[in-house]
Amino acid sequence: MTIGRLNHVGVATPSIERSVAIYRDLLGATAIGEPFDLPAQGVRVCFVDVPNTQVELIEPYDETSPIAGFLKKNPAGGQHHLCFEVADIHAAVADMKAKGATVLGEPRIGAHGTPIVFLHPRDTGGVLIELLETPGDHH
Amino acid sequence: MTIGRLNHVGVATPSIERSVAIYRDLLGATAIGEPFDLPAQGVRVCFVDVPNTQVELIEPYDETSPIAGFLKKNPAGGQHHLCFEVADIHAAVADMKAKGATVLGEPRIGAHGTPIVFLHPRDTGGVLIELLETPGDHH
Repeated sequence: MTIGRLNHVGVATPSIERSVAIYRDLLGATAIGEPFDLPAQGVRVCFVDVPNTQVELIEPYDETSPIAGFLKKNPAGGQHHLCFEVADIHAAVADMKAKGATVLGEPRIGAHGTPIVFLHPRDTGGVLIELLETPGDHH
Repeated sequence: MTIGRLNHVGVATPSIERSVAIYRDLLGATAIGEPFDLPAQGVRVCFVDVPNTQVELIEPYDETSPIAGFLKKNPAGGQHHLCFEVADIHAAVADMKAKGATVLGEPRIGAHGTPIVFLHPRDTGGVLIELLETPGDHH
């Protein structure tokens, strides 16, 4: 496996609305999508485009959200994960497992409509890494 | 001000050597620079290239390093900052101050040889943001 493009940086926030205001009004971002719910993943997300990648703002969908714990430790929000593209998610998972890394769950469809998985940060220098099959590059 | 490209993601690590092994051997990154010291900033850094941006691995240069405190809270390492490019660092600083954001110090030369500043995470949703004047775009 080889990591490709940094598809996005995941940033947890207690309020997408307040974070959108920061990226738009303070930082001058001009391409900000509409927020949308991903109830199956327990999150509401909103993508901020910069010329070469995206910032994914992530708000808990409810109390059972996987990022509720992160926000307890970081009430103001903060960097949550890095998402790199891979050509083939199933080959990537097999490669990660063969190398002894902990893959969290089975591939599932992510916010971009292609399969994703997460790697446990204990194997990746404390950084939660998402692998996303490159859109339009299904195998 | 408008944020441009995500120049790099800063990742703190207790050991650049061990992190390089993760990016190279586990994640398959193929374009990894040589580590170098920035003693004036108290860090040793190493850039991992992916097709559209870079991961900046950051190790404390000594005990007084500004990232020593981060590693005390996150001994395994973790995401430290996001660096966005801006066209003119002095205009960016003036704009941030006019909007009430806390700019940490004066612009100084960063790892890419162009001026940088950091914004206090309290103003940016808990994310430490570096602004970097686009290389080759001096004013």
